Amino acid sequence: MALKLYGAPMSTCTSRVMACLHEKAVDFELIPVDLFTCEHKQPPFLSKNPFGQIPVLEDGDLTLFESRAITGYVAEKFKETGCDLIRQQDLKESALVKVWIEVESQRFHPAIAPIVYEYFVAPIQGKSPDQTIIDANLEKLGKVLDVYEAKLSSSKYLAGDFYSLADLHHLPYTYYFMKTPCASVMDERPHVKAWWEDISSRPAFKKVAEGMNFGDK
Amino acid sequence: MALKLYGAPMSTCTSRVMACLHEKAVDFELIPVDLFTCEHKQPPFLSKNPFGQIPVLEDGDLTLFESRAITGYVAEKFKETGCDLIRQQDLKESALVKVWIEVESQRFHPAIAPIVYEYFVAPIQGKSPDQTIIDANLEKLGKVLDVYEAKLSSSKYLAGDFYSLADLHHLPYTYYFMKTPCASVMDERPHVKAWWEDISSRPAFKKVAEGMNFGDK
Repeated sequence: MALKLYGAPMSTCTSRVMACLHEKAVDFELIPVDLFTCEHKQPPFLSKNPFGQIPVLEDGDLTLFESRAITGYVAEKFKETGCDLIRQQDLKESALVKVWIEVESQRFHPAIAPIVYEYFVAPIQGKSPDQTIIDANLEKLGKVLDVYEAKLSSSKYLAGDFYSLADLHHLPYTYYFMKTPCASVMDERPHVKAWWEDISSRPAFKKVAEGMNFGDK
Repeated sequence: MALKLYGAPMSTCTSRVMACLHEKAVDFELIPVDLFTCEHKQPPFLSKNPFGQIPVLEDGDLTLFESRAITGYVAEKFKETGCDLIRQQDLKESALVKVWIEVESQRFHPAIAPIVYEYFVAPIQGKSPDQTIIDANLEKLGKVLDVYEAKLSSSKYLAGDFYSLADLHHLPYTYYFMKTPCASVMDERPHVKAWWEDISSRPAFKKVAEGMNFGDK
């Protein structure tokens, strides 16, 4: 039975999971959740995720939410197929994947998410992007990217010379960010730029990016 | 060779790792980092963690940062000893541990951390706690705890009827939070209250809590 993914292709967190499923060449059915009618904030969706957010993955009688938990599950369950995203057979490499997964979650995401929100979500709500919020978070993001630039000058990917979940988790927000006037923050750091061009051109993500048209509904 | 943990006992992130090390009965040496002289923002510490934050774990030639990555590594490396914190032998249980680890990281932490900051860190900086920030985050935290209350009415711990990293990760911030005037937010939810009393009374955490005296230096 194919996995069921409840979500929306334009959603950053849904596309994070889809990129992982495509890397693993796992068969899944995408079941659309209509964000504009707030389907995710009402039953029966709330019985799948009580926090009312997409995506949700159903694998038989197992129901999972939180995109980074779902990718971890998929990477572990399908460890024999596709790209090895967690390096479980090597304790040291697997530990470094964990470190950079947390860096994305705790440092990169809190800086980039508000910028993407201001450029893509605020306009849908009839508001102009708030430049004060953008500037404050660009400063935070720049500091994070300085560390990335140094790291990526000594290894091809964040956790080492192998593509992993740590890189993959960056894809959706960075994809939208690169469509904003702030994209130079990535481009002006040569190793970060090369890393982004590499990871965003992977076939698994290119399939996902086709559906990422925020606000075009 | 014993593991080396660079950190400070009063730090929430250091104590998260220490609670995990004690659960595993792993021998480690705590190497104090002086936050008040900003030792963590200068070399040589920056060569261990370029983000300039504690804790850092050294295991031979492996250097790790980000507390939740370190606990994941410790739980995996020492899976044969002490409490099984990640349920790796059961794909379904291990997936649910991942989900609730992410819930702590993405939902609980962003709500509780600013409250703890206002009560414990702001005063050290000569400021009064900002009630507007506290109230806004208490509202967020209450909504998260409503989900916890429902979950904990059907299982003893967050990921199931077993203690895991998902519970452990909550310990340090909640410990400080329970010393604030906001503690009733936990106490008024009976299943959350029982869960907190259970997890905070584990011997591994009681050892850690002895050193958690924020601002008493």
